[in-house]
Amino acid sequence: MRILLSNDDGYFSPGLQALARELAKVAEITVVAPERDRSGASNSLTLDRPLQLRRAPSGFYYVNGTPTDCVHLAVTGMLDMQPDMVISGINHGANMGDDTVYSGTVAAATEGFLLGVPSLAVSLVGRSPTQFDTAARLAREMVERVQRSPFTEPLLLNMNVPDLPYEALQGTRVTRLGKRHRAEPAIRSTNPRGEQIFWIGPVGEAADAGEGTDFHAVANGFVSMTPLQIDLTHTGQIAGVQDWLGQ
Amino acid sequence: MRILLSNDDGYFSPGLQALARELAKVAEITVVAPERDRSGASNSLTLDRPLQLRRAPSGFYYVNGTPTDCVHLAVTGMLDMQPDMVISGINHGANMGDDTVYSGTVAAATEGFLLGVPSLAVSLVGRSPTQFDTAARLAREMVERVQRSPFTEPLLLNMNVPDLPYEALQGTRVTRLGKRHRAEPAIRSTNPRGEQIFWIGPVGEAADAGEGTDFHAVANGFVSMTPLQIDLTHTGQIAGVQDWLGQ
Amino acid sequence: MRILLSNDDGYFSPGLQALARELAKVAEITVVAPERDRSGASNSLTLDRPLQLRRAPSGFYYVNGTPTDCVHLAVTGMLDMQPDMVISGINHGANMGDDTVYSGTVAAATEGFLLGVPSLAVSLVGRSPTQFDTAARLAREMVERVQRSPFTEPLLLNMNVPDLPYEALQGTRVTRLGKRHRAEPAIRSTNPRGEQIFWIGPVGEAADAGEGTDFHAVANGFVSMTPLQIDLTHTGQIAGVQDWLGQ
Amino acid sequence: MRILLSNDDGYFSPGLQALARELAKVAEITVVAPERDRSGASNSLTLDRPLQLRRAPSGFYYVNGTPTDCVHLAVTGMLDMQPDMVISGINHGANMGDDTVYSGTVAAATEGFLLGVPSLAVSLVGRSPTQFDTAARLAREMVERVQRSPFTEPLLLNMNVPDLPYEALQGTRVTRLGKRHRAEPAIRSTNPRGEQIFWIGPVGEAADAGEGTDFHAVANGFVSMTPLQIDLTHTGQIAGVQDWLGQ
Repeated sequence: MRILLSNDDGYFSPGLQALARELAKVAEITVVAPERDRSGASNSLTLDRPLQLRRAPSGFYYVNGTPTDCVHLAVTGMLDMQPDMVISGINHGANMGDDTVYSGTVAAATEGFLLGVPSLAVSLVGRSPTQFDTAARLAREMVERVQRSPFTEPLLLNMNVPDLPYEALQGTRVTRLGKRHRAEPAIRSTNPRGEQIFWIGPVGEAADAGEGTDFHAVANGFVSMTPLQIDLTHTGQIAGVQDWLGQ
Repeated sequence: MRILLSNDDGYFSPGLQALARELAKVAEITVVAPERDRSGASNSLTLDRPLQLRRAPSGFYYVNGTPTDCVHLAVTGMLDMQPDMVISGINHGANMGDDTVYSGTVAAATEGFLLGVPSLAVSLVGRSPTQFDTAARLAREMVERVQRSPFTEPLLLNMNVPDLPYEALQGTRVTRLGKRHRAEPAIRSTNPRGEQIFWIGPVGEAADAGEGTDFHAVANGFVSMTPLQIDLTHTGQIAGVQDWLGQ
Repeated sequence: MRILLSNDDGYFSPGLQALARELAKVAEITVVAPERDRSGASNSLTLDRPLQLRRAPSGFYYVNGTPTDCVHLAVTGMLDMQPDMVISGINHGANMGDDTVYSGTVAAATEGFLLGVPSLAVSLVGRSPTQFDTAARLAREMVERVQRSPFTEPLLLNMNVPDLPYEALQGTRVTRLGKRHRAEPAIRSTNPRGEQIFWIGPVGEAADAGEGTDFHAVANGFVSMTPLQIDLTHTGQIAGVQDWLGQ
Repeated sequence: MRILLSNDDGYFSPGLQALARELAKVAEITVVAPERDRSGASNSLTLDRPLQLRRAPSGFYYVNGTPTDCVHLAVTGMLDMQPDMVISGINHGANMGDDTVYSGTVAAATEGFLLGVPSLAVSLVGRSPTQFDTAARLAREMVERVQRSPFTEPLLLNMNVPDLPYEALQGTRVTRLGKRHRAEPAIRSTNPRGEQIFWIGPVGEAADAGEGTDFHAVANGFVSMTPLQIDLTHTGQIAGVQDWLGQ
């Protein structure tokens, strides 16, 4: 089984290293990851310049582009390989709720899925999380399960892991994405040249974190596993919009 | 009515100018757009550096960030305004099917929607489209319809306009996003220093372009209007994944 | 006479516009400038990606690169023109003393000079200077002087203009670059994610600002004109280093 | 003796690693280098955003900025150290003649010198040079010479090493920078979206490569050592420009 690994924190990230080390026990691993931290990159693709592939002493490949670029190029011809699975992570921090839309980690997995490859995003929840071994082991268990019992349709899975020792986990819950309240205001400041600057503010508090959500699972010590899809059509509104346009 | 305009082609883009000119007839317009072309930016947010707001002689504001940054900052405090609507565009080219996920134009509207503001993305289909007046007039008609008959719930609408004179349009269809075949392979080349480089290849051909899709509507001379949502949960797979994890 | 204009503040900069307006009275003007603010760019060249030339409604060309890229491409083939002179500016702020080495404004002129074209950098001294008309008029007078009495060897001139009405100027002094004390310390701060960040600190105070320097001329109300060269060889140290290596 | 190392190829570069390994035998080494390849960066400083310092598993620090940023921040407060010497390299390729002005490798050394620290730039000549051990050994010998016999004034030295085994070298020559002919034309091409693009073309052939130049020394198997200065004033032209302005 050939697995393509990527992430959004960069090819040198401890989370990615832990993942590669653990998965190498059960599969053939190729790493293609961004040359620098691209957190918040979402599904951005680089269209205005060409990209280059380089190889680090670790054997990992890195690309001067986004997480999506990495997976796109790896799967569409930069490497002579066609992965059986794409795994992205281990992200340093959660990718839950509607923030998922900004995530480069989830975007790398999404790109694999869009190209027809079953894909998994792995995130370790917490501000400076430490239990990468837990998340790596869970990713390996997922791969072993796929080896025993392949998916019957292409899946895109978003796994968020509490920052706990493996033994302290309560189990795994299949969840829906929760919702957050509106983001906090932008943060105004001044740079040393006296010019006004703005930082993007923190995300909002959880608004829907009830039973069944990823927020709820992780808060209660469970691994959260959310199946994702990428059809953004709001089918429930099609009729309503038709009525409205007829007015 | 206050409308925030943005785009992903940059604040100087003819499509944005046409939109601003037309909407100024019926609403109070504020433009906050990227300082340079950010096509393909998706929902990327700039987290590793602060952003600056500047004002062009045209009165348009521009930001050294992504389309999502522009809308995020404008709505969360950079300007002392709270828009009644966010409109993004007019994009030079289509945003249909599953490519929508890469679009900075749609992302700007999505950010408005995530922040609670009804939002519309406007794209003019074609490689070098010219009928910006058509698209601008359709956007104005949408605003007038909202003024007559406000949305009863926040909407995120994705409008794609055929590159035709207004009179040649066949009407408007409410659609679902179509699907494309897998993207074309990456394009290998060599730079003048003799190093191998890769360009992201073109999108794939339409795979689901049947009746009811945005592809079908536009191909037949209709304006396509797709209501979008941003919950990526694949609810239909939750039970199946639960079974699979139990194996 | 054909003049190529560039700068480092971006093609939309008021200083550049004032310069173009004034010089159009006496020469044929082509503007090729960076698409965004590239202050501090020094002589950097973009080698890892291709560049694109676009044209603004103002007729100015802009490039997604550095000041040096702009002049390099304009002179080596991007435009079907060979300028008789390159003028860079009007910079918003001084380029005097050893800071000159960091300046994108001076770098644009340097690139013209390296390509065999007589070149002039124009800077308006002050934190938020306003007397662009003064600097533009002085640049026009320089061009008229070149037209009357051409340089006998290629020159690279660095002009710094006090932020005064034209009538208040005391005259023009040909100067040497002054020297500054060591730069101020880097400024430590924290970003909203709690990570330590550093801003480059301000330049040092003038150390050599005596008679004959650019600092001294401007401080006394004179326009400073410094002829520059770009041979960095320290010929005075060649013998000493030879001795030292023999030890 | 404390030595600050930097480069422009990035903190992961084999040339930098070879240099650090060799110099660690005779001095206390701290590496602060760019997080990615910044060849061609010249003396550019990052003024519009803050910088971050991170540490790789190798113990090397890296910064999301230019070579000049790295040295500037390291010396002005980011680290609690004051180096006795700054050494930049080993660059993969020559930095000779008037190209030196574009070099990020030389710029890192220049920044050390501007901040009062004796500095050395080390480049290994050739397109894909391999003899990093030679260059590293020569750098170590320079450090040992400084330890035996300190500089009596701050020096900025530019060393270019032929890509030969140490034993094959003919010795060391103290040189002046040569001159090149004008750069080759820009290279026109088309990107996959059908848009015209331009690459910066190659440097020109050597125009002054005679006896006494860096070009000549290296072509004849000698290490070239050029003392540099950073005063760009063309003192020989001051009188001439005065005359000209009087006309």
